[in-house]
Amino acid sequence: MDFYDLTKMTWPEVAEALKTVKLAIIPVGAHEQHGPHMAESCDAVLAESMSHRLAQKLHPYALVTPTVNMGVSIHHIHFPGTITLKPSTLISVLRDMIWSLKQHGLRNFLLLNAHGGNQSTLSVASAEISQELDVKVYYAKTTASAKAAIKQHVHSTLFGHSCEREVSEAMYLAPQLIRQDKLEKGVIVEGDWRLLRPGQPLQGHYYYDEMTSNGCIGDATAASLEAGREIVEEALEQLSLALRKLLLS
Amino acid sequence: MDFYDLTKMTWPEVAEALKTVKLAIIPVGAHEQHGPHMAESCDAVLAESMSHRLAQKLHPYALVTPTVNMGVSIHHIHFPGTITLKPSTLISVLRDMIWSLKQHGLRNFLLLNAHGGNQSTLSVASAEISQELDVKVYYAKTTASAKAAIKQHVHSTLFGHSCEREVSEAMYLAPQLIRQDKLEKGVIVEGDWRLLRPGQPLQGHYYYDEMTSNGCIGDATAASLEAGREIVEEALEQLSLALRKLLLS
Amino acid sequence: MDFYDLTKMTWPEVAEALKTVKLAIIPVGAHEQHGPHMAESCDAVLAESMSHRLAQKLHPYALVTPTVNMGVSIHHIHFPGTITLKPSTLISVLRDMIWSLKQHGLRNFLLLNAHGGNQSTLSVASAEISQELDVKVYYAKTTASAKAAIKQHVHSTLFGHSCEREVSEAMYLAPQLIRQDKLEKGVIVEGDWRLLRPGQPLQGHYYYDEMTSNGCIGDATAASLEAGREIVEEALEQLSLALRKLLLS
Amino acid sequence: MDFYDLTKMTWPEVAEALKTVKLAIIPVGAHEQHGPHMAESCDAVLAESMSHRLAQKLHPYALVTPTVNMGVSIHHIHFPGTITLKPSTLISVLRDMIWSLKQHGLRNFLLLNAHGGNQSTLSVASAEISQELDVKVYYAKTTASAKAAIKQHVHSTLFGHSCEREVSEAMYLAPQLIRQDKLEKGVIVEGDWRLLRPGQPLQGHYYYDEMTSNGCIGDATAASLEAGREIVEEALEQLSLALRKLLLS
Amino acid sequence: MDFYDLTKMTWPEVAEALKTVKLAIIPVGAHEQHGPHMAESCDAVLAESMSHRLAQKLHPYALVTPTVNMGVSIHHIHFPGTITLKPSTLISVLRDMIWSLKQHGLRNFLLLNAHGGNQSTLSVASAEISQELDVKVYYAKTTASAKAAIKQHVHSTLFGHSCEREVSEAMYLAPQLIRQDKLEKGVIVEGDWRLLRPGQPLQGHYYYDEMTSNGCIGDATAASLEAGREIVEEALEQLSLALRKLLLS
Amino acid sequence: MDFYDLTKMTWPEVAEALKTVKLAIIPVGAHEQHGPHMAESCDAVLAESMSHRLAQKLHPYALVTPTVNMGVSIHHIHFPGTITLKPSTLISVLRDMIWSLKQHGLRNFLLLNAHGGNQSTLSVASAEISQELDVKVYYAKTTASAKAAIKQHVHSTLFGHSCEREVSEAMYLAPQLIRQDKLEKGVIVEGDWRLLRPGQPLQGHYYYDEMTSNGCIGDATAASLEAGREIVEEALEQLSLALRKLLLS
Repeated sequence: MDFYDLTKMTWPEVAEALKTVKLAIIPVGAHEQHGPHMAESCDAVLAESMSHRLAQKLHPYALVTPTVNMGVSIHHIHFPGTITLKPSTLISVLRDMIWSLKQHGLRNFLLLNAHGGNQSTLSVASAEISQELDVKVYYAKTTASAKAAIKQHVHSTLFGHSCEREVSEAMYLAPQLIRQDKLEKGVIVEGDWRLLRPGQPLQGHYYYDEMTSNGCIGDATAASLEAGREIVEEALEQLSLALRKLLLS
Repeated sequence: MDFYDLTKMTWPEVAEALKTVKLAIIPVGAHEQHGPHMAESCDAVLAESMSHRLAQKLHPYALVTPTVNMGVSIHHIHFPGTITLKPSTLISVLRDMIWSLKQHGLRNFLLLNAHGGNQSTLSVASAEISQELDVKVYYAKTTASAKAAIKQHVHSTLFGHSCEREVSEAMYLAPQLIRQDKLEKGVIVEGDWRLLRPGQPLQGHYYYDEMTSNGCIGDATAASLEAGREIVEEALEQLSLALRKLLLS
Repeated sequence: MDFYDLTKMTWPEVAEALKTVKLAIIPVGAHEQHGPHMAESCDAVLAESMSHRLAQKLHPYALVTPTVNMGVSIHHIHFPGTITLKPSTLISVLRDMIWSLKQHGLRNFLLLNAHGGNQSTLSVASAEISQELDVKVYYAKTTASAKAAIKQHVHSTLFGHSCEREVSEAMYLAPQLIRQDKLEKGVIVEGDWRLLRPGQPLQGHYYYDEMTSNGCIGDATAASLEAGREIVEEALEQLSLALRKLLLS
Repeated sequence: MDFYDLTKMTWPEVAEALKTVKLAIIPVGAHEQHGPHMAESCDAVLAESMSHRLAQKLHPYALVTPTVNMGVSIHHIHFPGTITLKPSTLISVLRDMIWSLKQHGLRNFLLLNAHGGNQSTLSVASAEISQELDVKVYYAKTTASAKAAIKQHVHSTLFGHSCEREVSEAMYLAPQLIRQDKLEKGVIVEGDWRLLRPGQPLQGHYYYDEMTSNGCIGDATAASLEAGREIVEEALEQLSLALRKLLLS
Repeated sequence: MDFYDLTKMTWPEVAEALKTVKLAIIPVGAHEQHGPHMAESCDAVLAESMSHRLAQKLHPYALVTPTVNMGVSIHHIHFPGTITLKPSTLISVLRDMIWSLKQHGLRNFLLLNAHGGNQSTLSVASAEISQELDVKVYYAKTTASAKAAIKQHVHSTLFGHSCEREVSEAMYLAPQLIRQDKLEKGVIVEGDWRLLRPGQPLQGHYYYDEMTSNGCIGDATAASLEAGREIVEEALEQLSLALRKLLLS
Repeated sequence: MDFYDLTKMTWPEVAEALKTVKLAIIPVGAHEQHGPHMAESCDAVLAESMSHRLAQKLHPYALVTPTVNMGVSIHHIHFPGTITLKPSTLISVLRDMIWSLKQHGLRNFLLLNAHGGNQSTLSVASAEISQELDVKVYYAKTTASAKAAIKQHVHSTLFGHSCEREVSEAMYLAPQLIRQDKLEKGVIVEGDWRLLRPGQPLQGHYYYDEMTSNGCIGDATAASLEAGREIVEEALEQLSLALRKLLLS
């Protein structure tokens, strides 16, 4: 094992690892529809895989906790199989995890999140838990910091869910998630959602089926292993650099 | 009265207004330090003023509710006078307000927010309340959509709190908030916060006094009435346009 | 400024004021119908105005916080425009405010309340918050202690909401709340409520529209500026006297 | 059995009784110190006894539920043996009871309360539960309506807890609560509480040991069986009269 | 009094008793249907009676608190008169009681429970409250430890509610609960519940009326005073022995 | 795929599966120390593996949801790495999952639990959620129904955590959890816990380190693949038989 994976360790092994570990990485995913070409655990699997790789880069200073394998997915609930947690439930889970890990001496936490729909809740969780438990809770979207690679490889104007970016990441990190023979572009439906996208004057809740009839946006057929590799590696480089500055300098 | 201000109306007047009103605008502010040159009610006053002007533009289709005059300001708590609500408290207040207004027949709500620290909580509130009460809850940062005017008038790389943008807005909307003789640049302190700013790979909670010793960022001395007018008017134009599309087409 | 108004102060001004301040006055109002002749913000505006005047009398020992501008008004919900908070929401708001102000060194709090429907909730809040946060939380109905002036000026047997007492107070404190040309007596409807009024063997919840079809009780046409002045000034005298005994002796 | 006591009935007997019953009386007491001369269950026992007698007067239209034998007594917690519920806990108990009884067809509820410290919480409970569950929840202080008898028999200016009124009631209703050989006047301690008594401009939380060193106020040595009988019977007459008007006319 | 009954003591008596008391026994019952031959308060009365007898055996080291006279009885709600608390409500009541008693110096608590339907909730309460309040919270089913006597006297394969065991216990402890002329065997209805009984592979919620049309199981006509005496005395012996080991050795 | 694994399916595949599926199996595990010879994810992995095998036996009538990979483990918190959820958090997660799955048409749920410490909480969850959401929530300990095989293969008097039973199950289901070279008997510490074991008169919370210094009980060195196979297969047979009776007859 070239990183500390809490799920695979015994308690004496954890005790030994805690001598150097300064950061717990908590993978945060979701369980929600990803169109006809990706399995519903996509975000949980990608968050876990990214956490493992990030922990490798930070070894022996980081450990990876069990994955939070469901998230806030109310906007996908109309598609079969989607499971959503209330924001308050997700915060409770994170609070209990962090409280527990603090008992073992940890003070720094990274919520490494693969699901955009969790970001607001994680922001609230970061502020609340940091103050209540007197710890540092950081959070990050897994590959958001891969700005150069995304600019190079992602060409859809509307993307971010089971699109060429996400499918590329999965090709590199977890190809078992993908139905190669079902790759489809998003089938966009017109509606009010256009007025509520990031960057628009207004924000607000809408259901994903108001925007896309197959559950995807962007163009999954444009995905590639190479794009996935570059996006993932750039993001890991950015994240590990920032964490080293925060924790090790 | 050239718009519907719920705080100033009697119930028969409200009954009459409800014949045309399609949207309730809920001003959401904060009560927190704004450096040596702005009063602590800044965000509440600006949110209320913006709401009034937006309602004028949408008259007779909008009404303005009482202002939520405190918000999520835990990051400012080390400065004297700051009051913070827990995110869960703010959501409860909004839920109760929207439940009440739904009793009177309203179904569309805009949380018009002047305080960045509220945005995550409002995002959670929008999703939770929209679903629980079967209504539409939109939210917007008051002047975030004034992209052109902000690009033109704001030159600090780090801005967003009692800076030239906010002071300019107040010069136009509520000059009584400003101590003209105390205008100061932010006095920046170096620290981990640089690694946690918007756009960085990591996000997370930090206290404002870790970043600035006088409670400001940006350069308030560069503020001007003209900048304020252009920012505010561009934002109002953007917001009213989007709302007309959503509600009236 | 002849009193400390937290909403209008900068943080350095608050820091200076805290050298003498021993009491935070929290104005507590409501947003609810007040018949055809008063605006719905009546209780919030009167609570704020009374708080300002009381702080003047206690200067430099008191400061006034932002106003809690909505309260427990479920009994008025059938009249257009009324907004109600759940009692638990109101208590959460007060707890968060008092927790925040305690961070700045304050230990004594007065909930100065203009709305009868809040009293039970404030009583619960006083006991709970005093114990949880180890502070002193007092509460008072704004003009309840003006016993002599009320006896002299109020002649309706059923009064207490948009009646001659309240309208008189508003004439003195905030005449903009009043529609002078709409002043009406309460139009009483018979019903079970008579068995549930204060002083009756039974108490219990009833809706205001079961009691009055125009939303008023008492006789607003009997209101006068002079009555308002005497009621308000007697109450301020009583409140400031009691507070001086509690805090300054 | 000349009244319906739910605790002593089998389910077929309850089914039969429900054919006529229109009201559930919920006795609400407390478990708190009552000085050296009364047992700590005083309020629970008196509430239960009053409820039984009231149900007799209303037979066959009322039934008595199990007694809520603890209440809000934080102000007595410094005296050994006192148990207090949080207001939110008491409301939850009442909500669950009323929800359950509504399943059996009941819609009218009287919280018959022997403990002053519960009144605010019961007022909140009445409003909240009436609305949430669409029922009628009334509440009453057991003997507060015995105005004539209290005026005649109670002469202490400060009374209301283990005083001549309460001891007299117990002599009539539950003499086993009384230590006849220990009857004492309240031993009053001076303090801020005088400024916070009912009728004073300010209200607020204080601990009972700040007011009385033996836990009593008033003059228990002036109690009499005759006073107890008159107070109790007058109150029962008032309560049953009001309830008959509400429920049976 | 040969044991400490908190409900019957004055505060100076409690103060004296606390010099030796090491354990608070909290009787936990229920209010629910017990068929045609037992009163609905059965579990509350039996829990209280058992607590008194156990305290006698442990005198002067134990005291008995007020009885929690309602419990988790949702599975009986279809029978007239049943009242149920939510599990979270019951836990709140217990937390408040234990918090209060800890103020008086107590650290060990026994939840002595007569109602099977409470056991899971008490298990959760024990773990939560022990940790939150840093106390020891034990719990026990009143007569579950009378293994020999139950084996000897109870012959129904399906028993545990208003059966020969429970009726026998009541004959010995509280015969007033029993309708001697109505004693009936349980009238069993076939259904899925057989697949969900203790010891089956699956567990789960079902309503009691799916299992028995008269609300009983087992054979109440086989009850006897002698069986009750032996069951109760064996259980008291077992419980007091275990408690003496825990607290006094 | 010979069973429906929700985490590996796309939404169109779920839509197709829902045509026959009658039951959702929710694997419930824990993340807690399992001595020096098992990984901390043991209960989560075993619950998931058992759920997969059970779904195979029930195909095409069952699907398996994402695994609840942390549980109530406060009693293990003193061992490094253990994470515990509050019971209320676990119930919230289950409520949200079941609410979501009900949106997709499912009405029957099995919480298949590998961790004894979760059982009370699952019992409470089953009753609460079944009633609130009008669904059927069953729960089962994974291998508790393998009574014959356990009797044959498990000889320790004290067993149930990282013992020969659990290690045998893992040898058959998930050998990667085991450190074959570290297998140890439990190192038992004497203490009060003996008085609180299942079957004792008293129950109550104790920490696992009060009972065993290496975190195990029983004798892991006596584990065998054959024992694991027989325990697992007997349990699967029992569970599938019971579920077929409940759901398919």
